[in-house]
Amino acid sequence: MSGEEAPTLQPEQEKKLDDPPLDASQAPQESGSSPAAEEKPLSFRSLVLTGYGGYDKVKLQVKTQKQPQLEAGEVLVHVKACGLNFAELLGRQGLYELLPAPPVTMGMEGSGVIEAVGEDVKDRKVGDRVIVLSRSGMWQEMVVVSANLTFPMPEQMSFEEGAAIPVNYLTAYMMLFEMANVRPGKSVLIHMAAGGVGFAVTQLCQTVPDVTVFGTASAPKHETIAQGGVTHPIDYRTKDYVEEIRKISPKGVDIVLDPLGGSDTQKGFSLLKPLGTLIVFGAANCVTGQKKNLLAMAKTWYNQLSLNTLKLMQSNKAVCGFHLGYITDEQLISRTMFKLLELYGQGKIKPRIDSCYHFEEVTDAFRRMHERQNIGKIILLPEAKKEEEKPKSSPEPIENVEKTEAAVNDKKEETTEEVKAED
Amino acid sequence: MSGEEAPTLQPEQEKKLDDPPLDASQAPQESGSSPAAEEKPLSFRSLVLTGYGGYDKVKLQVKTQKQPQLEAGEVLVHVKACGLNFAELLGRQGLYELLPAPPVTMGMEGSGVIEAVGEDVKDRKVGDRVIVLSRSGMWQEMVVVSANLTFPMPEQMSFEEGAAIPVNYLTAYMMLFEMANVRPGKSVLIHMAAGGVGFAVTQLCQTVPDVTVFGTASAPKHETIAQGGVTHPIDYRTKDYVEEIRKISPKGVDIVLDPLGGSDTQKGFSLLKPLGTLIVFGAANCVTGQKKNLLAMAKTWYNQLSLNTLKLMQSNKAVCGFHLGYITDEQLISRTMFKLLELYGQGKIKPRIDSCYHFEEVTDAFRRMHERQNIGKIILLPEAKKEEEKPKSSPEPIENVEKTEAAVNDKKEETTEEVKAED
Repeated sequence: MSGEEAPTLQPEQEKKLDDPPLDASQAPQESGSSPAAEEKPLSFRSLVLTGYGGYDKVKLQVKTQKQPQLEAGEVLVHVKACGLNFAELLGRQGLYELLPAPPVTMGMEGSGVIEAVGEDVKDRKVGDRVIVLSRSGMWQEMVVVSANLTFPMPEQMSFEEGAAIPVNYLTAYMMLFEMANVRPGKSVLIHMAAGGVGFAVTQLCQTVPDVTVFGTASAPKHETIAQGGVTHPIDYRTKDYVEEIRKISPKGVDIVLDPLGGSDTQKGFSLLKPLGTLIVFGAANCVTGQKKNLLAMAKTWYNQLSLNTLKLMQSNKAVCGFHLGYITDEQLISRTMFKLLELYGQGKIKPRIDSCYHFEEVTDAFRRMHERQNIGKIILLPEAKKEEEKPKSSPEPIENVEKTEAAVNDKKEETTEEVKAED
Repeated sequence: MSGEEAPTLQPEQEKKLDDPPLDASQAPQESGSSPAAEEKPLSFRSLVLTGYGGYDKVKLQVKTQKQPQLEAGEVLVHVKACGLNFAELLGRQGLYELLPAPPVTMGMEGSGVIEAVGEDVKDRKVGDRVIVLSRSGMWQEMVVVSANLTFPMPEQMSFEEGAAIPVNYLTAYMMLFEMANVRPGKSVLIHMAAGGVGFAVTQLCQTVPDVTVFGTASAPKHETIAQGGVTHPIDYRTKDYVEEIRKISPKGVDIVLDPLGGSDTQKGFSLLKPLGTLIVFGAANCVTGQKKNLLAMAKTWYNQLSLNTLKLMQSNKAVCGFHLGYITDEQLISRTMFKLLELYGQGKIKPRIDSCYHFEEVTDAFRRMHERQNIGKIILLPEAKKEEEKPKSSPEPIENVEKTEAAVNDKKEETTEEVKAED
């Protein structure tokens, strides 16, 4: 439902990566391998969605299994940071149709260091720092992915920044430059302007001269988003954003980027200037509480914009849908990622990191996003939290490991230890 | 219904120009005037739609009235050539919602020479050759229009070319560059590729490197449209154009420009690549016979593409409507016209004139467009046909004038003579 998602893969690769990336026991034994790491068993931390529902459905487990046998074109990555996206809030509630059924590891983006490469991998080598994009399965310490969906990190980029780029910036870039054709003198409305996509959109708009950005966010975030480049921050909680925008620009705006859905889509459509473009890229309005809310879903669905082409003609408007998860063209993704890395190199984009949470603290991370407290990207860190990092408000020991031995998948030769998340 | 229409005007000017442009008796007598032509009565030929229906509803009349009193900002133009658009086929059948009720003079574009200027007209003078855009009323020898909607003609441009530019090229330009963002490497499907918009689209696509144009037209037109720049002409009468396009480009096309409506819109949507754009700019499928066909309309309406935003998200597609008649931003129109004139000056665009018909022959002009015989633009000439130009197949005398004296509008001090059209 949300556009903040990782791409699907080319059909021939889809089947394999529908499974969690690291799935060594299922890899054909005769294919390419990483000779140095053949025998030592691999133990790694993984966040597993055990069923649909509230925060407690995501469990930290420690998995132990044989070294993965890499297929041609694959790499093994030691993950250092992962991104949290709105799609995972939907996924946890069972509202994200591209996520495989539980038990499953969520996570569509991350960064890390290559630990092993399969055959036919020419432009990646062990030790390379890379950004990784995947349909799911990134929220674990070790992943096996297609080398085509790894991207070299510039030297000055931190792992946190690397993990914050793919989903938000690909979404923002494709919407602004592939679909909406933002140009000098245009105006853009972005909702949730203090979120990951919001910052990405704002920064990318600044690469074009004379673009006006209207951004909705709650009042305490206004100073930060204005510093980031939002021309007109609007407090959607206390004001009618349609009225506020009309006061500043009576004719409306050229581009509306809508991650909300429902009645906000209709408002966005009404705000468009002639020849303007509305892009719906999410349905955040579906999410209210921790668990699936049928009433909110029905309301969002009922209020969703339905159009016929006659109405569009009479208004001279464009309506688009965008969902990175359904983009299957790897070349397009790759080309766009390299453009983004170039812009990063030029200092034109830089992800704003709101906060970092260790896997043990995933509940806090979810809550922070759910309650819209974040200003920028929320990052998850696979590495265990050190004692001295422990926040004062959280007195209980971190490594409260509930040791269980359970196969997550009966085909796998692995053991799983469940780690109690701090809560 | 069709996008091949002239723009509406700014609200404050709309009321005035809803009436036929030449309407001197209604102009306030105290405002600016053209001193030299104050007293001599004005006599001019005009095509008048007398009611909705077949070809016979458009009558050639000779009107006589006092010299018009120009308001500030207005000019009087002696029209030398007018464009015929699909919108007038719809208008004649009562299917064009922006046309005032009969009796009314249709015609949304033309070219001619300025005969008088009102007060505050600074950049136009008597004797200037201009292109004119109007909501309606251009199919007559003399028109009063806002100087803002006249555009200076380059020296090398013929009146026929001037009359062929506004509606088709504004439509093509705004669709390709404002809405669809055509760029190098993209592919475009245009239906009715041998029509006025078809040639305009094809020529404008060639201003961008490496754009592939798929164009539907009947087989006898293929050579001409291929010479004009259509990469892949497709005979929609004998082949399934969807299959033909998929054979050449299995992934589909980036941009579909659809003047047809109904089931063709659905086919166009299905042909779009991810991140592709469909623009519906007409409903030519509504028109079958000479008169309104309720069945064809119902079918076109029933089959029209209806969409919700969820479906758009899952397909990553854009759907737009375009209708020049509803563009009210004069600055946008003016800016775009000057771009087009620049492209003309650079030799990058040049309207292809299919044929020219004198006002007496308007029925033949309608029939030619209705039967899709034209390759390029059909032009109407206000000037009476000379004896030697008479086609051999039409032996009856041309100036068979049925003299009647009737006020077209009871407010007007004018006489009207009806001229029998050749048929």
